[in-house]
Amino acid sequence: MSYQLYYWTGIQGRGEFVRLCLEDAGAAYTDVARIEGDDVMTPFLEGEHAGALPFAPPFLVSGRLVIAQVANILHYLAPRHDLVPDSESTRIYAHQLELTITDLVAEAHDVHHPVAGSLYYEDQREEAKKRAKDFRESRIPKFLDYFEKAVERGGGRYPLRSHSYVDLSLFQIMAGLEYAFPKAMKKQKLPLLRDLAKRVADRPNIAAYLTSERRVPFNTNGIFRHYPELDG
Amino acid sequence: MSYQLYYWTGIQGRGEFVRLCLEDAGAAYTDVARIEGDDVMTPFLEGEHAGALPFAPPFLVSGRLVIAQVANILHYLAPRHDLVPDSESTRIYAHQLELTITDLVAEAHDVHHPVAGSLYYEDQREEAKKRAKDFRESRIPKFLDYFEKAVERGGGRYPLRSHSYVDLSLFQIMAGLEYAFPKAMKKQKLPLLRDLAKRVADRPNIAAYLTSERRVPFNTNGIFRHYPELDG
Repeated sequence: MSYQLYYWTGIQGRGEFVRLCLEDAGAAYTDVARIEGDDVMTPFLEGEHAGALPFAPPFLVSGRLVIAQVANILHYLAPRHDLVPDSESTRIYAHQLELTITDLVAEAHDVHHPVAGSLYYEDQREEAKKRAKDFRESRIPKFLDYFEKAVERGGGRYPLRSHSYVDLSLFQIMAGLEYAFPKAMKKQKLPLLRDLAKRVADRPNIAAYLTSERRVPFNTNGIFRHYPELDG
Repeated sequence: MSYQLYYWTGIQGRGEFVRLCLEDAGAAYTDVARIEGDDVMTPFLEGEHAGALPFAPPFLVSGRLVIAQVANILHYLAPRHDLVPDSESTRIYAHQLELTITDLVAEAHDVHHPVAGSLYYEDQREEAKKRAKDFRESRIPKFLDYFEKAVERGGGRYPLRSHSYVDLSLFQIMAGLEYAFPKAMKKQKLPLLRDLAKRVADRPNIAAYLTSERRVPFNTNGIFRHYPELDG
């Protein structure tokens, strides 16, 4: 089984959460737009394909299935690649954690685009400074303290007591926030989350991926953006 | 089986999507905070209960399960109450549609709170006016045209070809947007979505619910808020 992932080229963005899952699993996949260009996604978004209608990238094609929304994609992939425990209650909890990561990612995006995603950052910089202050002082601690507590409840090493796709997404939000808000992140303790992120980075498939050309560097077109004026 | 729903009192908010599902199903449930007060949720949010740790309300207790995140709750409830077709591919698509509704709901909230959820609306009114313009002119049409197209693809009456929980959530976003942005919504055509919303409102259990005291009226503490200055 080989998958086709469709996501904007040039950024990690939301597609990266899917890539990390596929890479950790050692799954065969094609990152289609990186080969054929972003236009390859248009027929899907315009409803010219059978199956589900995606609202936006990323979406994954698996056989006849078209699956959009990151947490939905991961909820589909994880059981097929031993990246979530078997029990229903644990899968529901894993999905809940992933959906909370989704919320944090949306907020991290809106820090630099508080007025409109369709406008340039430069046209909403003053509003962004205000939103960034709240994000740094209130939202980052609230979300990350929550995930720290979730790891603690899981025994201190994993929120689900053993390795899962949620670990990979937690690694990605830690990496993204460290890139975008290095000063604000220095003020956070988070010993368990930091240790988990390090262990994820050291997993053989992930370590190989992170040093490959497939890992696009963070940049100021993505969701996590480093603008010094937003880091306090 | 009786469920316990936990959500903030005084508003429809995100809890309403769960209520509509429970009411349509005729399921037995207790809306716990409305009886015991909002403080009843604190022990769950502080991790003093077994099971999953919720980040925020709403969360549903079903036997020993604690389930948070609206789309996750609906994904759990719907198969138990014949509110989603059986096939895996349809359930994945239903969940994708619901997650896209979740995104729209978050954006509807941020229209009146573009800077910080922790600040009063009055302290971010100027930023809200800017965000509202983009929401009315760009985001409402983009989301609702997408859902209109989804209903069309489903045969014109339901996105999933037969009644499902997604219909109930589509009804709720139409109701919320009509309340908050009556002028902007007049400019939208959406014949299929409007027809679907009307058919949902006419379902016996939903019609009974909407005229009951359990349906809290929309108000300016909720997610969908009517501020005339934000409606253009």
